[in-house]
Amino acid sequence: MTKTENKPAQGSDNSRPEARLPKGMQDSPAREIRATEAMLATIKTVFERYGFEPLATPAIEYTDALGKFLPDQDRPNEGVFSFQDDDEQWLSLRYDLTAPLARYVAENYQTLPKPFRRYQTGPVWRNEKPGPGRFRQFTQFDADTVGAASIAADAELCMLAADTMEALGVPRGGYVVKVNSRKILDGVLDSIGVEEGRRLTVLRAIDKFDRLGEEGVRLLLGEGRKDESGDFTKGAGLKAGDIDKVMVSTSPLSGDSETTLAQLMLLADSEAGAEGITELRTIWELVKAGGYGQRIVIDPSIVRGLEYYTGPVFETELTPTIKDARGHEIRLGSVMSGGRYDGLVARFTGEQVPATGISVGVSRLLFGLQLLGKYKGDSAQGPVVVLVFDKDRLADYQRMVQTLREADIRAELYLGSSGMKAQMKYADKRGSPCVVIQGGDEKARGEVQIKDLVLGATLTKIEDREEYLKKQAEAQFAVPEAKLVEAVRQVLSRQKT
Amino acid sequence: MTKTENKPAQGSDNSRPEARLPKGMQDSPAREIRATEAMLATIKTVFERYGFEPLATPAIEYTDALGKFLPDQDRPNEGVFSFQDDDEQWLSLRYDLTAPLARYVAENYQTLPKPFRRYQTGPVWRNEKPGPGRFRQFTQFDADTVGAASIAADAELCMLAADTMEALGVPRGGYVVKVNSRKILDGVLDSIGVEEGRRLTVLRAIDKFDRLGEEGVRLLLGEGRKDESGDFTKGAGLKAGDIDKVMVSTSPLSGDSETTLAQLMLLADSEAGAEGITELRTIWELVKAGGYGQRIVIDPSIVRGLEYYTGPVFETELTPTIKDARGHEIRLGSVMSGGRYDGLVARFTGEQVPATGISVGVSRLLFGLQLLGKYKGDSAQGPVVVLVFDKDRLADYQRMVQTLREADIRAELYLGSSGMKAQMKYADKRGSPCVVIQGGDEKARGEVQIKDLVLGATLTKIEDREEYLKKQAEAQFAVPEAKLVEAVRQVLSRQKT
Repeated sequence: MTKTENKPAQGSDNSRPEARLPKGMQDSPAREIRATEAMLATIKTVFERYGFEPLATPAIEYTDALGKFLPDQDRPNEGVFSFQDDDEQWLSLRYDLTAPLARYVAENYQTLPKPFRRYQTGPVWRNEKPGPGRFRQFTQFDADTVGAASIAADAELCMLAADTMEALGVPRGGYVVKVNSRKILDGVLDSIGVEEGRRLTVLRAIDKFDRLGEEGVRLLLGEGRKDESGDFTKGAGLKAGDIDKVMVSTSPLSGDSETTLAQLMLLADSEAGAEGITELRTIWELVKAGGYGQRIVIDPSIVRGLEYYTGPVFETELTPTIKDARGHEIRLGSVMSGGRYDGLVARFTGEQVPATGISVGVSRLLFGLQLLGKYKGDSAQGPVVVLVFDKDRLADYQRMVQTLREADIRAELYLGSSGMKAQMKYADKRGSPCVVIQGGDEKARGEVQIKDLVLGATLTKIEDREEYLKKQAEAQFAVPEAKLVEAVRQVLSRQKT
Repeated sequence: MTKTENKPAQGSDNSRPEARLPKGMQDSPAREIRATEAMLATIKTVFERYGFEPLATPAIEYTDALGKFLPDQDRPNEGVFSFQDDDEQWLSLRYDLTAPLARYVAENYQTLPKPFRRYQTGPVWRNEKPGPGRFRQFTQFDADTVGAASIAADAELCMLAADTMEALGVPRGGYVVKVNSRKILDGVLDSIGVEEGRRLTVLRAIDKFDRLGEEGVRLLLGEGRKDESGDFTKGAGLKAGDIDKVMVSTSPLSGDSETTLAQLMLLADSEAGAEGITELRTIWELVKAGGYGQRIVIDPSIVRGLEYYTGPVFETELTPTIKDARGHEIRLGSVMSGGRYDGLVARFTGEQVPATGISVGVSRLLFGLQLLGKYKGDSAQGPVVVLVFDKDRLADYQRMVQTLREADIRAELYLGSSGMKAQMKYADKRGSPCVVIQGGDEKARGEVQIKDLVLGATLTKIEDREEYLKKQAEAQFAVPEAKLVEAVRQVLSRQKT
C-alpha cells in the first residue's frame, strides 16, 4: 500500500467525489443478474453430472504464482492489476481461473484425488484497454481435469461442451465443437525451424483468421500488418513458402472429420505432427462412440491464442447467423473453449502434471443465447405493494405485508413519503402484480381494496361498455381483510395464465 | 501499473515460484462451497420475498468513490487494497457493499424507483492483518433500502433478519435481533460535549463490550488500555463522570423492550436523544404489530463500530451457547447487522438521501449454523465411476458413462493411468456410490459388473456366513449391459434409504 494521497476525481469539485465507475467496469441490473444466474445454474448441473467438483480460490494471488500466461501481452507487464503487499511481495488479481488452479494443485497435490476434476466460476480481471463489449472484469466458468494424460479427458471436455449447449436450449445443429491439436502446428513450425520466441506471434496471427481473413493473417505471419487506424503490428517474419505451409496446416478443411484426418495425415512430416494426428484420431473415435460424431468435428483452423497449450485445443461456436438490431451479422466467436496444458503445474513443482480444461465465456455466451431468444431475463414478478393511505396506520399496513410474506408472496410496504399517485407510479415501476389499499372507509368495513395492475393496464383498450365495467370490477375489488392472501393469490394466478 | 520486476518468492529457488496462498487468503473446498451456496440460496429467497432486487457492482471502484468509511483504521490509509490506473487515478478493491451502493445510487438516481430496494452478495477485501478466522477476502450479503426516511424501513430490516434466521433453520428463541438508535448515544455525547473527532474512538470502545467487559471499555473511554501483549491503545479521554453517563446510556438494560424504552426516556436530556427514543418506539410498535415482539428487542448496548450510522442500528445474535471442539464457549458476535446511514449518498450529490441497510457476515453465520448442526455441507454423492479394465476399450467405457449421464446420473470415466486397485481407491476417495466394471469375460457375455461401494464397505462387519454371502451378492453383481442404467438406479435408491 502506498501512502500517496488520493488525487481528486476529474470533473468533481474539491469537496465531493464524482459518482462514476472506473473505465471498463460495469454494474449489472436485476434482469441481467437473474438471466446470468439461471444460465450458470444450468451449466453447473451439467458440470456436476460429469463428475466435476466445485472449488473456489481467492481473487488475489502472488504475482509470481500467476506466471506470465496472459493471452494478450500487447502491454507487457500490464495485463494484470498488481500491487505490493506490506511485506513488499507483489500481489495480482487473477486474470483467469487456470493459473490459480495450477497453484492450488501444486500446493495440495498429495491430498487430492488423482485425476482431480474441478469446476470453478467467478470474476477475473484484465488490466487492458476496455472497448465496446470488452470489460476489465468479467466472469468465467471453467472445468478442468488435472493429472490425466489420457486423451479421453480432452474428448470428454468436448462432449461436456456439446451437452452444455443442449442443456442451455441450443438445439442440435445450432452449435459445433471444433477440435484440433496444437501439435499439428508445432510439427510444421519444427519442420520450418521457427524458434520458441516467435511461436506466440504465429499463434496470435492464426487466431485472428475469423476477424482478419486469410490476407490479414498472411501479413501477420510475414512482415506485419497496418490496420485501418494506421497502427502497424509487427509480424512473425516467416518466408513466403513457410507461410504457405502454416496456412495449409491451419485451414478449415472441407469435408467431414474422417476426410480431414486423412488430409492431415499427408501433412504430418514430423514427430509432433504425427502425435497430433494420433490425438485427434483418438478423440474422434471416442466422441463417435459416444454418439457425438455430428456435433464435434476435427478442424485444423483452431489453434487458440494462448501459448501454454500443449495438445488438443477446442472451441464451441453457435452456428446460426446472429444479427444485431441493425441487421448486421455478428461474429460472436467461441463461447466455450480450452485445451490441454501439460506444463502449468510443473512451473511450481518441476514435475509434469498433465492437465486439460475448458472455459465458458459467460457474458459472450449469454449474449449469444439472448440473441437466439433464450435467457432474456426472467420477467420476475415484482412485489405486491401495500400502499400507505394513512401515515398513522403504518403498523396495520406492515402487518398486511407480513401476512402476505408468511404466505410466501413477494410483498412490500411502500416506504417513501409521497402521495397515492406517486405510490401507484412506484408500483408500476417495480412491476407489481397488484397493490393493496386500505383507506378509512375500507378500514371501517374491515375490508381491503385490491387493484390488479396487469388487468388494469388493459382496460383502456376495451371499447364495449359492458365488457369494460365487468373487467373494471375484476381489476379493482374489495375483500374482507381476512381474505387478503386468498384474493392476492387469485390475482397472481390469473396473471400467470 | 508499475514496471518493477517481481521479487522472487521467499523460500523458492530462482527458477520456480512457490505454490502458496497470499496471507489472509483461503481456498474453499467442495463441501464448504456447497454448504455456503445452500445457505446463500435460502437467504436470497427471503430477501426476494421482502421485495429486494439483485444488483451487482464491480470489485474495483475509484478510491475516492469508496470514501473513508473503513470500520477499523488501525492502519490509516491501509485498510483497502489500492493501485493506480494507467491514467494515474487511484483504484481500490471494495471493502464492503455499502460504499459501492452509494456510488451506484448517486450515479443512477434519476432512473431508479424510489425507494430503491436492492440486495447484493459477493466478496469484499480488507488490507488488514489476518488472524485466526480473520481473512482478507470474505463474502457479504446485504439488503438496503435507499430513499426511505421512514423508520418503517429499519423495522422491516429487523423483521427480515428474524425471518432469515428462521428460514435457515434457527428456531424461534434461538436468535435475537437487538435494536438501538445511534441518536441516543449522540444525545449523551452532545450533552457532555464530545466533539466529532473523538466520537469514533468512543463508538469503538463501546463496540468492544462483549470482548473486553465493562472495565476494559471504561479504560478505552478514559485514558486508554494496555492489552495482554503490552500494546497500549489510547482512549477517548473522557472524564469519570462522563464515562458513567456513556456507560449507563449503553448498558444492556434488564427487562423487556417496553421497560427499556421507559428507562431510556429518563436519560433523554437532548434533542438527539429524544429523537432516538421516538425512532425506537416507532420500530417497537411496528415489530410488535407484525408479531415479532419477542424476537426483536430494544437494547441500548448496540452501537456498531462504524462512524457513518445516523439512526437505528441492529445486530442479530444466535442465542444458544456455542462451544468449540474443546468445550470452550465461543463468542460468535453478530451474524447479521446494520443500521441507518443518511449521509452516504450526499457525499457525492450534496443532497441527503436517507438509507438503511443490513449485512450478513456469511462465513461467521455459516460457522454458527454448522456449530448448531445445520448446513454441515451436503454430502453430495460422488459420481458413478466406470473403471478402465482394458485400455484398448476406452470408447466402450466412455459410451457407458454417456449412457449414465443421459439418464441424469452423475458419472465419469476413470481418466488416470493406474491399475484396478488404484482405480477402486480413487472411487472411494471420490465418494462414489458404485463402480462399473467390464472385463473380457463380461464383454463376451454382454454384461457389466456393478460394485456397490457403500454396501461393500459394510460386509466386513457381518459375522453370519449366510448373511455375508447374501449381502456380498447384492454388493457385487452382473447385469446385461442394456440394463446398466436400471441397475445403477437401483443401487442409488437403496443407498438413499
